[in-house]
Amino acid sequence: MSKKILILPGDGIGPEIVAEAVKVLACLRDDFGLAVETEEALVGGAAYDAEGHPLPEATLAAAQAADAVLLGAVGGPKWEPLDISVRPEKGLLGLRSGLGLFANLRPAILYPQLAAASALKPEVVAGLDILIVRELTGGIYFGRPRGVETLDSGERKGINTLVYTESEIERICRVAFDLAMKRGKRVCSVDKANVLECTELWREVATRVGADYPDVELSHMYVDNAAMQLVRAPKQFDVMVTTNMFGDILSDCAAMLTGSIGMLPSASLNADGQGMYEPIHGSAPDIAGKGLANPLATILSVAMMLRYSLNEPAQAERIEQAVAAVLDQGLRTADIAGEGMETVGTAQMGDAVVAAL
Amino acid sequence: MSKKILILPGDGIGPEIVAEAVKVLACLRDDFGLAVETEEALVGGAAYDAEGHPLPEATLAAAQAADAVLLGAVGGPKWEPLDISVRPEKGLLGLRSGLGLFANLRPAILYPQLAAASALKPEVVAGLDILIVRELTGGIYFGRPRGVETLDSGERKGINTLVYTESEIERICRVAFDLAMKRGKRVCSVDKANVLECTELWREVATRVGADYPDVELSHMYVDNAAMQLVRAPKQFDVMVTTNMFGDILSDCAAMLTGSIGMLPSASLNADGQGMYEPIHGSAPDIAGKGLANPLATILSVAMMLRYSLNEPAQAERIEQAVAAVLDQGLRTADIAGEGMETVGTAQMGDAVVAAL
Ligand SMILES: CC(C)[C@H](C(=O)O)[C@@H](O)C(=O)O
Ligand SMILES: CC(C)[C@H](C(=O)O)[C@@H](O)C(=O)O
Repeated sequence: MSKKILILPGDGIGPEIVAEAVKVLACLRDDFGLAVETEEALVGGAAYDAEGHPLPEATLAAAQAADAVLLGAVGGPKWEPLDISVRPEKGLLGLRSGLGLFANLRPAILYPQLAAASALKPEVVAGLDILIVRELTGGIYFGRPRGVETLDSGERKGINTLVYTESEIERICRVAFDLAMKRGKRVCSVDKANVLECTELWREVATRVGADYPDVELSHMYVDNAAMQLVRAPKQFDVMVTTNMFGDILSDCAAMLTGSIGMLPSASLNADGQGMYEPIHGSAPDIAGKGLANPLATILSVAMMLRYSLNEPAQAERIEQAVAAVLDQGLRTADIAGEGMETVGTAQMGDAVVAAL
Repeated sequence: MSKKILILPGDGIGPEIVAEAVKVLACLRDDFGLAVETEEALVGGAAYDAEGHPLPEATLAAAQAADAVLLGAVGGPKWEPLDISVRPEKGLLGLRSGLGLFANLRPAILYPQLAAASALKPEVVAGLDILIVRELTGGIYFGRPRGVETLDSGERKGINTLVYTESEIERICRVAFDLAMKRGKRVCSVDKANVLECTELWREVATRVGADYPDVELSHMYVDNAAMQLVRAPKQFDVMVTTNMFGDILSDCAAMLTGSIGMLPSASLNADGQGMYEPIHGSAPDIAGKGLANPLATILSVAMMLRYSLNEPAQAERIEQAVAAVLDQGLRTADIAGEGMETVGTAQMGDAVVAAL
């Protein structure tokens, strides 16, 4: 039976980059026997403009019914002044929690063809291959009480709550250890256990889970030190596992070390293997509609989808090899072009990947 | 009347590096007419071992009575398994809140003599000069409720609370804008206003304070993007202002960009101009007692003290020029020595600075 993929183009460059990923999927279906059906729905600012809510019920229902979701990007300055309960990112957070996507996998890989784009010295980043496993449906993103209240003095006070239960910590740590078993067999758990009791519990649970994986080396690091070590010597890391908020910060930092954030995909998984796949970069409203955006992170997100939700590792490999081939051919969108290099647009890049499949 | 400085050597390399800073102070007093008196007290693990508490009452009282405090570093693995209420860092947090030190100033400066030590490409970091202003007595570090509770199910849950009032946000933003007026006249306020209501309030208050400083350009950035931009193009920043937790992470990241974390001082100020001064680096237990640590960050912390708490800018300048001179002479402790360079120890470096005053 063919697998159902829900396509959520979203805002800004979302529709353009997703269109190229859809071309890739169509080619795998038509020429390489991949049994998939796609359907499209609205999310983010686009949904807000059309239906008054960034996550329409029909979109969430379609996502829940799908085997996997491919998301472009959401949000943009146009929707910024909205109340937090309706702003586009709530669409994203609503999708994450509505699908129970607690495990966010964010690889930070340096493509050898693009090494020059990194702000770091070649010897510091050559061969970089980190996987950040970020908890995605808990922590301070979702904790209550939250909001702004007015004190008797008339002054206002803003509140958010960081909260994790043992079982929430345990399941995300298991994901990290399971992934580490297939990679470098090292997990670094990042917390701020010297200050935050909630992350002291995190450290304790990570240690307990680690005892079930004698072949994996577990280390613990404070988040401030982790931010430093990512800049100083990122190759010391294999898998990093951390909270929603720390993961947000560290994964962006790690991604930027590679200098090619336009290349990096991500996966968000739930307990049933359903997943949402999206590029790490945002909606880039400044270049939206111009046909300049790099579609490779979205195309590589399809590869992650094939691997993690559709159990099609060979098809995933096919995409990854096609991407490597177009890079070898010297094709570059503006974001990854070195000085003086010729650049191609979004559609040309997508077409080149399809041709290389 | 002579000014009172409380010296808190602390743990690990703390006593060694502070001893060199005290030599510098003594030289300024004896040879250059600086009217200061010093007194010493215990803090951190050293205090815990001697008196059962990382911040003895006598130490806090002496700090409150002093015009300024010079701190080496606190903590180390020896005290790690302790309950959070007595662990050494509580000594540090207790000092910060006990003295009302709400404004933490963390410069990230690239010393031209040490440019090669950075993990970043020279063109990305040459001339880097950022000042991070971190809120230090509020936010999730101090918010309540906090702790670990047991649910009816028997499972445990960890909680910490991020909380800021308008007045807390306003006073730290004013410090940032006042400092920006004396520098590049740009403030970047870092928050996560798209997710955390508490930092939505932060953004609103920062904007309001900014209206009082028409000559300063204010921008806002999400913390994940700020972590990326620090790696991609750090020279875009002048002054950054942010919460306690985000400031902890971003200031360490920014400091590491320079590659010479052993060089960077910090100041923590209260509303009365009293301040605590300390190197950005930690207690480095692995090299403690070996005479290898770099005392320059501590010596430069004395310069910050002279400028911000003792109103002696000319004496501060004297120290800064002496440090530049020893770097020009080629003196290097191991942490800042390039490949194949000869190194000096802690005391030799301190003596060289004194000789260059
Ligand atoms: C847009 C925002 C809500 C989101 C997050 O903070 O999780 C983004 O930064 C990300 O990392 O996917
Ligand atoms: C030791 C620790 C409590 C402290 C902090 O988190 O504030 C340190 O990391 C710092 O930045 O001074």
